[in-house]
Amino acid sequence: MKQNEKQVLLIGLGLIGGSYAMGLKKAGWHVAAITRSQSTVDWALEHGIIDEGAAFVDPKLVGGANLIIFGLYPTAMVEWIREHQHLFCSGALLTDVSGVKCGIVDEIQSFLREDVEFIGSHPMAGREVSGVRNANDQIFVGANFIITPTEKNSEEAIEKVRALAKQLRFGKISILTPDEHDKMIGFVSQLTHAVAVSLMNMSDNTHLKDYTGDSFRDLTRIAKINEVMWSELFFLNKENLVGLIDDFIASIEELKQTIVEEDTEAIQTLFRRSTERRKYFDK
Amino acid sequence: MKQNEKQVLLIGLGLIGGSYAMGLKKAGWHVAAITRSQSTVDWALEHGIIDEGAAFVDPKLVGGANLIIFGLYPTAMVEWIREHQHLFCSGALLTDVSGVKCGIVDEIQSFLREDVEFIGSHPMAGREVSGVRNANDQIFVGANFIITPTEKNSEEAIEKVRALAKQLRFGKISILTPDEHDKMIGFVSQLTHAVAVSLMNMSDNTHLKDYTGDSFRDLTRIAKINEVMWSELFFLNKENLVGLIDDFIASIEELKQTIVEEDTEAIQTLFRRSTERRKYFDK
Repeated sequence: MKQNEKQVLLIGLGLIGGSYAMGLKKAGWHVAAITRSQSTVDWALEHGIIDEGAAFVDPKLVGGANLIIFGLYPTAMVEWIREHQHLFCSGALLTDVSGVKCGIVDEIQSFLREDVEFIGSHPMAGREVSGVRNANDQIFVGANFIITPTEKNSEEAIEKVRALAKQLRFGKISILTPDEHDKMIGFVSQLTHAVAVSLMNMSDNTHLKDYTGDSFRDLTRIAKINEVMWSELFFLNKENLVGLIDDFIASIEELKQTIVEEDTEAIQTLFRRSTERRKYFDK
Repeated sequence: MKQNEKQVLLIGLGLIGGSYAMGLKKAGWHVAAITRSQSTVDWALEHGIIDEGAAFVDPKLVGGANLIIFGLYPTAMVEWIREHQHLFCSGALLTDVSGVKCGIVDEIQSFLREDVEFIGSHPMAGREVSGVRNANDQIFVGANFIITPTEKNSEEAIEKVRALAKQLRFGKISILTPDEHDKMIGFVSQLTHAVAVSLMNMSDNTHLKDYTGDSFRDLTRIAKINEVMWSELFFLNKENLVGLIDDFIASIEELKQTIVEEDTEAIQTLFRRSTERRKYFDK
């Protein structure tokens, strides 16, 4: 980078953007931020989460940044870059925090200026709350971090984002293609959210709250969901997610059939298989 | 009770039976046990979990007990009582630990001697392991305990079982009919196990283990399942459970449809509903 090596601009200062700011400040970075509300900027300045900030697209902040991290929802990010890319300084590196990569990474790379580089990355961390006031860089410690380069990305960009993730104390840092990423996230995150939401929505069983144990609470915790972000993520990964929901329905229909037929051998085979498979996922 | 007020016989000494024995011993009870294997009896005696035990149906132990707790699987318990009820002393009170009540409580009460009383109860606690060697009475602390009396049960029996649950340090103690119990347990426990098992069985996604976070692990923890006990519980509650699986499939199909149609308003309504409902289940 031409200027200060440890200078970063965050676009969007919600839960994840705020937590990045917090972690990067601690790691010795100079952190600037652009976000929509002045009260967010003021709060972040007062709490030492950022060094400078603006509630408008400040050309000086954007043009002075060699590393820009987008903490916006995916479609808002695409539009922001389309609209403001003339402000980027030549050689700037851009990355994101989006939970879906297909249709985002390719789209941005298709219209982005040739002298600027965008590389997708996904910090697999979150909370059931939102906003900078709930930001906490502890959520990254030991969590998974995925980098999703395409043939348009440089080795240098991959290494810079990897170094960023290390400084934020992520655990396993992986390289996946956008396609591999979206298939994976469809299964381990989106399908499980769809299941938890559907369990809660199937009927009003709130009168049963006094009888639930930890298993039920664990399984449905993620039914508390940010409807704006998750509708966007689900639609962007529509093809994978719909296929996974169909596979899941087929699987529970198979189990149902063994119950209907009281087929002891068949149901016990299913239980043994799930027990064996689940063991791989133990920490 | 005619003889020692704090004398109890456990039939079956697995995870739950063993944990009852442990907790009741600490509460000052004289604990006897009948179980299938001599090594279990020896182990329980050596570890001070029981005061006396037999690996056969000892008429002296059975006939001397005023309170008998069955820690057997439901259908094994029904057959045990049918075969050995001539050994019970007159006035004996029997209860169980079964996770399903319809078809069990009624069945036993239909053939039980008139001078003996059976009352259903369900300690809502467990672990993903089995056997007396994993017994631990801490699993009961603060857990739910359900008593399922019918018109054949006495107030005295209800109060005796309630007192038992208090001494084992259960939290909320509730009275439900067998029918209410099975509807409730179908939703909060059996359906969630069916969902976790089906998530694991839908495809071999074990290569994704490195990418999973706590949400996924929480949601699928109960896919590790004792296939003998759970096949029995599922079949005994077949009618409720199959209906619940159908309702759940309809719910996730509805969610899928909003994704297929990219209907933002509809999916956000579903997300808001699940978020609202889930709040009732927070501890």
